Amino acid sequence: MDQYLQAALEEAKKGYAEGGIPIGSVLVHQGRIIGRGHNKRVQEGSVVLHGEMDALENAGRQPAAVYRECVLYTTLSPCPMCSGTIILYGIPRVVIGENRTFMGEEDLLRARGVEVEVADNPECVQLMERFISEKPDLWNEDIGV
Amino acid sequence: MDQYLQAALEEAKKGYAEGGIPIGSVLVHQGRIIGRGHNKRVQEGSVVLHGEMDALENAGRQPAAVYRECVLYTTLSPCPMCSGTIILYGIPRVVIGENRTFMGEEDLLRARGVEVEVADNPECVQLMERFISEKPDLWNEDIGV
Repeated sequence: MDQYLQAALEEAKKGYAEGGIPIGSVLVHQGRIIGRGHNKRVQEGSVVLHGEMDALENAGRQPAAVYRECVLYTTLSPCPMCSGTIILYGIPRVVIGENRTFMGEEDLLRARGVEVEVADNPECVQLMERFISEKPDLWNEDIGV
Repeated sequence: MDQYLQAALEEAKKGYAEGGIPIGSVLVHQGRIIGRGHNKRVQEGSVVLHGEMDALENAGRQPAAVYRECVLYTTLSPCPMCSGTIILYGIPRVVIGENRTFMGEEDLLRARGVEVEVADNPECVQLMERFISEKPDLWNEDIGV
């Protein structure tokens, strides 16, 4: 597996070990990880810190020029919130672990000029499948269902 | 002015007084404000806590059924991140103070079935115009420009 997707998956596993929602992300600028994060709904009672948002938050305030040279790696297809954030900051490329357990706003991202790559990684799928079968209500809460 | 938009404007003014970006929001459930917030970029170094996000975060974890009965009041037209969040949680109605100083994703919201009302409130416009003329770089950072 790609080293950055691997780092995102490590974040997802950290979230799972904490009893949280196992979705992780890293923000990569010119080959260097500048932000790592995972979903914090359970851990911090947060409704905005999805994995992607947490990675961006942990990267801190960056000038637009930096975001425009970044790639966001995330274990799961980005929901409308996270996709909107990618569009807001002009992140040009997103690498997604899988979109089998949840299909996010990949079409919207592409329509706005974001390059979207889906790795279809079995480890990412298995982790989400396990979580969803264990805590379906928590998962539904996270995606507003 | 509508009492809820007034409460959102009070949040925006609080942000301005703190040296921050003066955008405020309140989340209203069946006539009761369940979350208040304002942009926290400066105050908390946050890249995700726009006014709308902060109000949702302060409302805490809510079941989908609650979001579906909410109205979000915000002083400024919602950016892609905040619009995506409104779509994620299925908030059916958004009341916007103004969209003269920034036009957000109102078309996307409408396309996804969200009712969008623009109050075109002069106080909201003036506060943003003052802020943008005072701190144009900070404003550009907030909208990814």
